[in-house]
Amino acid sequence: MSLIKIIEVMAILVGAFSGLVEARTKKMDVVGVFTVAFITAFGGGTLRDVLLDIRPLFWVQHQEYAILIFFMSLVASPLLRHLRHIVSERLIVVADALGLGLFSIAGVSTALHANMPLFIASMMGVITGTFGGVLRDIVCNQIPMVLRDGRPYALCSFAGCWIYLLMRKVEIDPTFALWFSVLFIVLLRLLTWFKDVRIK
Amino acid sequence: MSLIKIIEVMAILVGAFSGLVEARTKKMDVVGVFTVAFITAFGGGTLRDVLLDIRPLFWVQHQEYAILIFFMSLVASPLLRHLRHIVSERLIVVADALGLGLFSIAGVSTALHANMPLFIASMMGVITGTFGGVLRDIVCNQIPMVLRDGRPYALCSFAGCWIYLLMRKVEIDPTFALWFSVLFIVLLRLLTWFKDVRIK
Amino acid sequence: MSLIKIIEVMAILVGAFSGLVEARTKKMDVVGVFTVAFITAFGGGTLRDVLLDIRPLFWVQHQEYAILIFFMSLVASPLLRHLRHIVSERLIVVADALGLGLFSIAGVSTALHANMPLFIASMMGVITGTFGGVLRDIVCNQIPMVLRDGRPYALCSFAGCWIYLLMRKVEIDPTFALWFSVLFIVLLRLLTWFKDVRIK
Repeated sequence: MSLIKIIEVMAILVGAFSGLVEARTKKMDVVGVFTVAFITAFGGGTLRDVLLDIRPLFWVQHQEYAILIFFMSLVASPLLRHLRHIVSERLIVVADALGLGLFSIAGVSTALHANMPLFIASMMGVITGTFGGVLRDIVCNQIPMVLRDGRPYALCSFAGCWIYLLMRKVEIDPTFALWFSVLFIVLLRLLTWFKDVRIK
Repeated sequence: MSLIKIIEVMAILVGAFSGLVEARTKKMDVVGVFTVAFITAFGGGTLRDVLLDIRPLFWVQHQEYAILIFFMSLVASPLLRHLRHIVSERLIVVADALGLGLFSIAGVSTALHANMPLFIASMMGVITGTFGGVLRDIVCNQIPMVLRDGRPYALCSFAGCWIYLLMRKVEIDPTFALWFSVLFIVLLRLLTWFKDVRIK
Repeated sequence: MSLIKIIEVMAILVGAFSGLVEARTKKMDVVGVFTVAFITAFGGGTLRDVLLDIRPLFWVQHQEYAILIFFMSLVASPLLRHLRHIVSERLIVVADALGLGLFSIAGVSTALHANMPLFIASMMGVITGTFGGVLRDIVCNQIPMVLRDGRPYALCSFAGCWIYLLMRKVEIDPTFALWFSVLFIVLLRLLTWFKDVRIK
């Protein structure tokens, strides 16, 4: 469990970071930066839990993450111009792929626990993995990147969720199924990104 | 019941189709096409159920609709350029009016079942009938059509919901009240559309 | 309690009014005007209640407010050009600050009742105080004002919520804590507005 927690925190931090960068690009103030970072980090999981009627929400139970993002926003606003030079785009893509993989599988396994049918469970995985970024783009007044850019993003999540569901169906060890499908999403995303594969 | 199911499926398909067309116009990829089709088809009913705290959601219980829209998206993306010539605008308007009527009355009767006061029930009818399109336009980064174009759309739904509520109040046969008010919305919408009636 | 009700109604009316003005500026029809007025007035409280899983929603229980806004929309659409000359901007700012203070403290105290941790309760206060305006701007296809303009708005709400939480912690009389923190938000907002204080 504790290893999952660590990666979960990484995923949330990655989401928050991409929100910070996006919000600063749009010249938002510190409140806007916090808001966009927060919804990017927690938007997907929150929508999933509202749709499945699971309460309390993750960030309501664990306020330490909200507080952490709050302080990141305070610090990041003045620092971000410099950070963008330090953090290379490649690092961001890798981190973001990690977040996609972890969030997606966390979502699909939560939905499975709530006895959802298989296709709905796979959709919940995709929603958890991607909706934070969708909300970020709506608040920043853009057509969401995931719906627009033709790079496989939600598709990677969708494929990985089905691999997880099939592995659970044939009763492979749950822990192995979890890690294998997270890794699958991360590698598929990175491979298609660096090969510049496009869908139409 | 089975006749309602058939029309309900028609309404969902109509919503999904309008989402498919809109998403392709915005040059979205296949994931975007599915997403926009899905939220156009299920957005209104989902918002109503979240507001009234009804679970499980319709599309969670009936995953076959989500799967159907999924395959429609796969097929529609390459085909849509041709489909837009085959399907005349007049047919789309008629189908869309059918969807508006059915979704609205399904919404108002669901709210009545949940013991909502009358005005709130009528609002739930309008929300169910129109919110899918609103979500579609927000995701596609436009001011929602229903809020902007001056043609009676939500108003037709609102009027029909009140006719249904009044007929239930004077204890007219529920099945007749249902069909009469669905038909009322459909005809009012078509009449005002083809006469080009505008509100200000 | 009845005094709170009066100010709550004032806050809702203020929210509705700012929605009416915004919707007319965007040349929306009467349905759009009602919708935007409604979500500006009730958006914050509704999101808070959905996140905390509190039902029934305020406006579902008290349909008289929805009906009132409905008639305001009918009357306001033709009148609004004249109203904008009669109502000075200064009056709007004062009324809006009142709404911010009342909604925020109502939100934070609701969250406290639902046993939320302190930081989450303060966030619920800010959400209740500001989200109506965020939704209004998203529907009108703008980057939300609160995230963009650099004037302290959410920050005033945040500060006032913490004052309320601290006063409750040291067991000051709840009624006094309530009014003091509402007043604090209102005055802080007005002071920073008229002094044109900006955050970065």
